[in-house]
This record gives sequence, C-alpha cells and structure tokens, in this order.
Amino acid sequence: MNKIEVCFTPALFDYHKNENAIAVVVDVLRATTSICSAFKNGVKTLIPVGTENEAKAMKEKGYVVAAERNGIKLDFADFGNSPENFSEEAVGGKEVVYSTTNGTKTIMLANYCSDVVIGAFSNLSALSEWLVKQNKDVVIVCAGWKNRFNIEDSVFAGALTDYLLKSNKFDTICDAAKSAKFIWDNSKDNLLSLINSAAQKERLKKNNLDYSIPYCITLDTTTVIPILKGDRLLEVSELENR
Amino acid sequence: MNKIEVCFTPALFDYHKNENAIAVVVDVLRATTSICSAFKNGVKTLIPVGTENEAKAMKEKGYVVAAERNGIKLDFADFGNSPENFSEEAVGGKEVVYSTTNGTKTIMLANYCSDVVIGAFSNLSALSEWLVKQNKDVVIVCAGWKNRFNIEDSVFAGALTDYLLKSNKFDTICDAAKSAKFIWDNSKDNLLSLINSAAQKERLKKNNLDYSIPYCITLDTTTVIPILKGDRLLEVSELENR
Repeated sequence: MNKIEVCFTPALFDYHKNENAIAVVVDVLRATTSICSAFKNGVKTLIPVGTENEAKAMKEKGYVVAAERNGIKLDFADFGNSPENFSEEAVGGKEVVYSTTNGTKTIMLANYCSDVVIGAFSNLSALSEWLVKQNKDVVIVCAGWKNRFNIEDSVFAGALTDYLLKSNKFDTICDAAKSAKFIWDNSKDNLLSLINSAAQKERLKKNNLDYSIPYCITLDTTTVIPILKGDRLLEVSELENR
Repeated sequence: MNKIEVCFTPALFDYHKNENAIAVVVDVLRATTSICSAFKNGVKTLIPVGTENEAKAMKEKGYVVAAERNGIKLDFADFGNSPENFSEEAVGGKEVVYSTTNGTKTIMLANYCSDVVIGAFSNLSALSEWLVKQNKDVVIVCAGWKNRFNIEDSVFAGALTDYLLKSNKFDTICDAAKSAKFIWDNSKDNLLSLINSAAQKERLKKNNLDYSIPYCITLDTTTVIPILKGDRLLEVSELENR
C-alpha cells in the first residue's frame, strides 16, 4: 500500500516530506485552480517565480506575467490570479510567468519530492486516477495562508484523500489526512457553506474577487494535470509523450 | 469581543502567538489530562521540565518525578503519564516534577503569552467559565505529536472554541479554530469513534496504555484550572487567594 500524508501548511513540510513521494500542491483560492484553468485553455508552460522582483524581471524580458500579492494584481503584471484571467485568448500557446502570495512558494518547497503536481477541485478525478497509476506515496501540501492553516486547501486535501483511499491502493496513518477527510465527508454536500466561513472568502470579497469561488469549488471541469519539470509547469500528457 | 486562535502544533506557534492572550495548552492523550488529575488529587505544585536530564537531576534532588517518552515511563521516574498514576496517595500535598514527549515542551513555548493554563476534556466547563471572566484573547495551543497535527488535541480545541463562542464574549477569524469546531460539532456525539482513529490511540495500544482513553475524553470530571506561575503549575484558586 502506498501512503498518504497531508501537510496543512508549508511551515509543517519538514514533518511530512518524503523524497520518494509525489507532492500535490493545493491552493484552491485561487492559484492552483487558475493553473488548471491555464492548462485547460492551452497555455504552453507556466513558470512559477517566488518574488515580485523575479516576476518584474521576466516581464521586462517580454514574458506574459500573471502576478498578485494578497489578492491584488501587481501593477506591472498583465493580469492577476482569477481563474477567469487565464482564458484561451490570454494564455493559449504561450509561456506565462506566474507569482502568487502562497501558491508559487509552496510549489518550490514541494520540489523536494520526486514529482510535483497541481491539484484543485477542477481536476480532482483526473488527478486521483493519475496518482493511483503512479504507484507512489502521496504528500498533499496545502499552501495555506502565510504559513497558517486554511479551510479551503484542507477540505480539498480531504477530498483527494477520500478519492485515493477508495482505490484501495493507498492507506494513511496521518491524523491530518484523516481530519481533512472527516471535514470533507461532513461538508461535501454543502461545500459552499464551508468555504464561505473561510478567512480567504473575506479577503477576496473585500477586493470584489469572491465571484470566482463557485468555479473554484466545482469538481472536474478539466482533466489536465500540471506537473513541474525543472523550473516550469507542463501538462503531464506533454511530458509523457516526449 | 475577544479573539480565539487555535494553533494546531507547536511548530505553528509563531503564526498565532499573542503576548496579551491567555494560552491554553492541550495534550489530551495524556499530559494535560494527567495534570488536571494531579490537581484534582491535591498535588501542591507540578514542575514541568523539558529534558530527560533535567527530570533525572530533579529525581536525584529528592523530588517525586513523573516522566515518559513516547508513552513509556523513563526508568528513573516514579511513574509515567497515565492519569491514574496521579492518585491522591501518589501526589497529594507534594511537589511533583513532570516531563513528557510533547506536553511539557508546549507549556514552555506558550509561556510567551500573558498566562498559560492547562486544558483537557476533564476541566472543559470550568476552564471555559474562567476564561470568559478574564476578558482576554485566547490562544489554544495543541501539543500535537512531534510538531505534527493530531486529532485528539484539535477536537478539544474545537470543543473549547465552541464553549467560548457560546458566551458571546468571543469571536474568531481563525480558520484553524473554525475547522476544529467543525470537527467537534460533527463528532461530539461519538467522540470515542473519532479518537479511536487517531495515531496516538495506536501508540498507546502498543504499550497497553489505551485503557485511559475513555477517562481522557470524559467531560467535566474536575473543576481545577492549573496555571503556570514562574516555572511551576499551581491551581488557579491558590494563586487568586494569595
């Protein structure tokens, strides 16, 4: 049996890390949902960068840049971090640089693991099926909020734990995974109500950005699986077809 | 309104700490339950110490010493960490040195806050009432397991959050507090089933120590509120009567 671990915030990564595992990075509101949207809409590659300065330098080199801090688009960026921004027109066929408050940093941290893939409610079923085929341990790494636990990433971790356990190829002794699954089991029929209690809902609302929440918690709107290769995210089928 | 924060593991304390708040340290299985038992049974003071060497040195000075690591009594100690060990005969009227895997270290960390008190299901109602009277913010600090999230301390944090919110003197914007309360709300009618899924249940069972779980999750068996004063725990009424 392969093992599932859930890491509730980047600050806990050291206690869950496993170099043989596949890391699933999750930042439901909104980085990893937006990344899935970008690949659904034909982006060629996404280049995650950690700092504002790096993102700005890439803009000056001519890249399309999506970048936000605390939900707000950075002034030099082409657009921010709403899934709607990553339309076919905006990103199709392009290399896009991407930098967000919590998501991109978590991707880099998770790069300790054997592979890093991107999870969101939008690719939950496709991602689960792919993970089952890989026959490796899985560490689900929640981006959280500035190293604090958050509700939306944790309930996604519970959903993915639930899907993986149902394959009978995984088990878990991780209390975080079990608690995340407990929250998912008891909220999945009214997920919007749970998400509306999250601090991130209030942050988005303050900036009139909470309109994207229903999309961010809709399951299975795409089958893409973004995977980190070197310093870039690709769609996994492109990597596997090489 | 005073604020409630829940810190799921000592590794996250920096993101929740508040020097004006009262810290409630919780290690349900079993350190803080045992501390409540000790005061219920008339211990004079408990002296938490972090390391084995400190505990051993105190034993050599003639103190009664309760000490365990990974659930097992240390060989030089008078007894381990089962609530049953802290009987009136064993601890009544005495100064007892106490050192455990996660609990005592968490007490020392939480000492950053304005006060540190000890929480367990056994003193839940009395503790809640006392906290409401103090008119201060509250940070609930879960001892966890070696810096990892655990189920039993988190569900207690949810119970205490629930009790405090019901007073209408507190609110919270902390996702960890809301999630802990969600777990409590959905498990309180069958708490043993939840606790039986915890990793700590398996650790205790392996050492034939899981017999104390039903006591550890029984509500309101005592009204004591242990509080840290200097390097010692006292019963709060003793402090207030000084």
